[in-house]
Amino acid sequence: MDKIEEVLTRGVEKIYPSKEALEKFLESGKKIRLYSGIDPSNPQLHLGHTVVLKKLREFQDLGHEVILLVGDFTGRIGDPTDKTSIRKKLTHKEVLENAKTYQEQAEKVVKFDGKNPVKLKFNSEWLDKLTFNEVAELATFFTVQQFLERDMYQKRIKEEKPIGLHEFLYPLMQAYDSVAMNVDMEVGGNDQTFNMLVGRELIKAKLGREKFVITVPLLLGTDGQKMGKSLGNYIPLTDNFNDMFGKIMSLRDDLIVQYFELCTILPLQSIKSLAKELSPMDLKKRLAFEIVKMYHSEKEAQKAQEEFEQVFQKRNLPQENILVHEIKPVENDDVLKILTESGLVSSRSEAKRLIAQGGVDIDGATIKEASEVKMKDGSIIKAGKRKFLKIKIKG
Amino acid sequence: MDKIEEVLTRGVEKIYPSKEALEKFLESGKKIRLYSGIDPSNPQLHLGHTVVLKKLREFQDLGHEVILLVGDFTGRIGDPTDKTSIRKKLTHKEVLENAKTYQEQAEKVVKFDGKNPVKLKFNSEWLDKLTFNEVAELATFFTVQQFLERDMYQKRIKEEKPIGLHEFLYPLMQAYDSVAMNVDMEVGGNDQTFNMLVGRELIKAKLGREKFVITVPLLLGTDGQKMGKSLGNYIPLTDNFNDMFGKIMSLRDDLIVQYFELCTILPLQSIKSLAKELSPMDLKKRLAFEIVKMYHSEKEAQKAQEEFEQVFQKRNLPQENILVHEIKPVENDDVLKILTESGLVSSRSEAKRLIAQGGVDIDGATIKEASEVKMKDGSIIKAGKRKFLKIKIKG
Repeated sequence: MDKIEEVLTRGVEKIYPSKEALEKFLESGKKIRLYSGIDPSNPQLHLGHTVVLKKLREFQDLGHEVILLVGDFTGRIGDPTDKTSIRKKLTHKEVLENAKTYQEQAEKVVKFDGKNPVKLKFNSEWLDKLTFNEVAELATFFTVQQFLERDMYQKRIKEEKPIGLHEFLYPLMQAYDSVAMNVDMEVGGNDQTFNMLVGRELIKAKLGREKFVITVPLLLGTDGQKMGKSLGNYIPLTDNFNDMFGKIMSLRDDLIVQYFELCTILPLQSIKSLAKELSPMDLKKRLAFEIVKMYHSEKEAQKAQEEFEQVFQKRNLPQENILVHEIKPVENDDVLKILTESGLVSSRSEAKRLIAQGGVDIDGATIKEASEVKMKDGSIIKAGKRKFLKIKIKG
Repeated sequence: MDKIEEVLTRGVEKIYPSKEALEKFLESGKKIRLYSGIDPSNPQLHLGHTVVLKKLREFQDLGHEVILLVGDFTGRIGDPTDKTSIRKKLTHKEVLENAKTYQEQAEKVVKFDGKNPVKLKFNSEWLDKLTFNEVAELATFFTVQQFLERDMYQKRIKEEKPIGLHEFLYPLMQAYDSVAMNVDMEVGGNDQTFNMLVGRELIKAKLGREKFVITVPLLLGTDGQKMGKSLGNYIPLTDNFNDMFGKIMSLRDDLIVQYFELCTILPLQSIKSLAKELSPMDLKKRLAFEIVKMYHSEKEAQKAQEEFEQVFQKRNLPQENILVHEIKPVENDDVLKILTESGLVSSRSEAKRLIAQGGVDIDGATIKEASEVKMKDGSIIKAGKRKFLKIKIKG
């Protein structure tokens, strides 16, 4: 019972129709079928995705049937918003590849094998078969006004930005997923609330039964902005342990406790105690340690912490993972070329911007202009806070 | 050229993109393919429908390819508006029956045989095959805002009446008809303007070509209201010649010229002269004569006119077509029963209402209450302006 209580509160924003109703349903001992959807157009998982995945894992551990649904049907239609750009359509092959990548990352959180494995499904299985007639019939259960009330649409209308007519079909597609899989529950980020509730209504109308909906909060980026809004404010699960540790250390202090709650499995009581005992810096190190331990290993978490302490706290160079970049003797004054060719920054314009912002050091001295530079064999270039490069001059 | 000029002006409200563009297209001598849609849920044609049909006939006579499209796909989904009532779904058999009835009536105006016959098509032929994926793709060409601008939707939003989500799919269906048949033009009432223009846009987007649209005005009912709003203000093509003549004679005087223009084939010049020469009563008789002649025969038009003049102008009884209704001797005081069983009125409550309004005469005397009546063998009951019944007492 206590376990259910925690599952229904920690990292949960809202439950439809109510927490009490779901509690009662679960306490009956019935095994339920629940799912969460995945957008296959961007298969790179980041820490934000794990909030939903952790919730699924908790239900998996309680013995319930969990489905991860790849929205390959939606993915093939592509992003609707920007009609002037060519819509990105994914081939079935790309979708399958993305799904595989996705599974590899997700299995750090949920289990795809063992006694009660999470099932991977594709919604093209049933949406491909729907006819226009059936779509129109599904549509009869909703009104245009209901759909217009959605925040996102209201905002676009106010800003005079177009809403593609097919964007009114998306909630229907997602709603039909619930009917086709005959699920008891859906879990998703709060930005999916509208779609999930449309599914709840459709299941009620078509199958005459309840579908519970759990919404989880959206994890904010390390800078407190929406994830992905500014580059590098989110943490991909494929980050190496040093990058992951370092990025978590850049987290805004007021978000530490929320990250603990949503991204780690430490008991809430322990989190409370730690937050009282430790300084923000130490608390954040503990957070980074816990998360790197989950997605890499305890040993690598230890290593990452040591590395971080050396480089950023003692202002030393990292002991390993420093890139060596070979140049010809004549190139030793072309820092823009070195920065881009080495891959340290992605473009010449970004390199220029970084230099203008004082983000590039050579041998410990911040440079002001690309033209003022001369490098020697063994020079160390530092770009941004955590990227280093050692120059080797050929011949 | 003069012929084209008349086809593009008489009974035409608007041409998209412009009259000039269509004129140029037609004067090139190219044979075009045009169509108009039919709602199979109500196969009873009335004079209002003939405005479009006459336009089609004109194009047929010019040698163009004309299609009458039965909206059986739409018909099967049924009327969307009132979600509390059970939606009326037509079976395929009913649709075919309705289409047959429709054709029988329409061939008074267009030709389904001969050298260049009008073709009857059914839109289920292509709409049945459309998948959800294809529907969503069609939808990408339009925005929700575009659809919301439609008058009908604006009105419903203002009145807080629901717009079914599937009602946003209807214009798409109709638009796809244009693409599937690859037409050059669509003709329809001005209440169809929105749907026809959606089709124009879709053909442009999908096939990269122009679709012309001709809208015709809606013929008003004989009382100046929208047709069908009040019972009996429209004239079914299946009316017998006397009823048809009589109903046209009830036309509001200010509509006579428009009816001449939209419903007869008299040259505009003749209509102008007649309107100058004749009194409204004689002008209307001429109109009724012309229309009955079209849908029945000249002989019957003549008969109907004589009948009308006798009954309504000389206050005599009609010479023929008078119903004889047999009753038992004991029934001779039950006028309500006689009125309903004979079919003269549709219900007891209507009979009561008609009596209360002074609309029922027995042997020339208006009755005030149903209870005050005694009829004898040979009594004549008159209900409303044109319905008569002769009583025959059995035994």
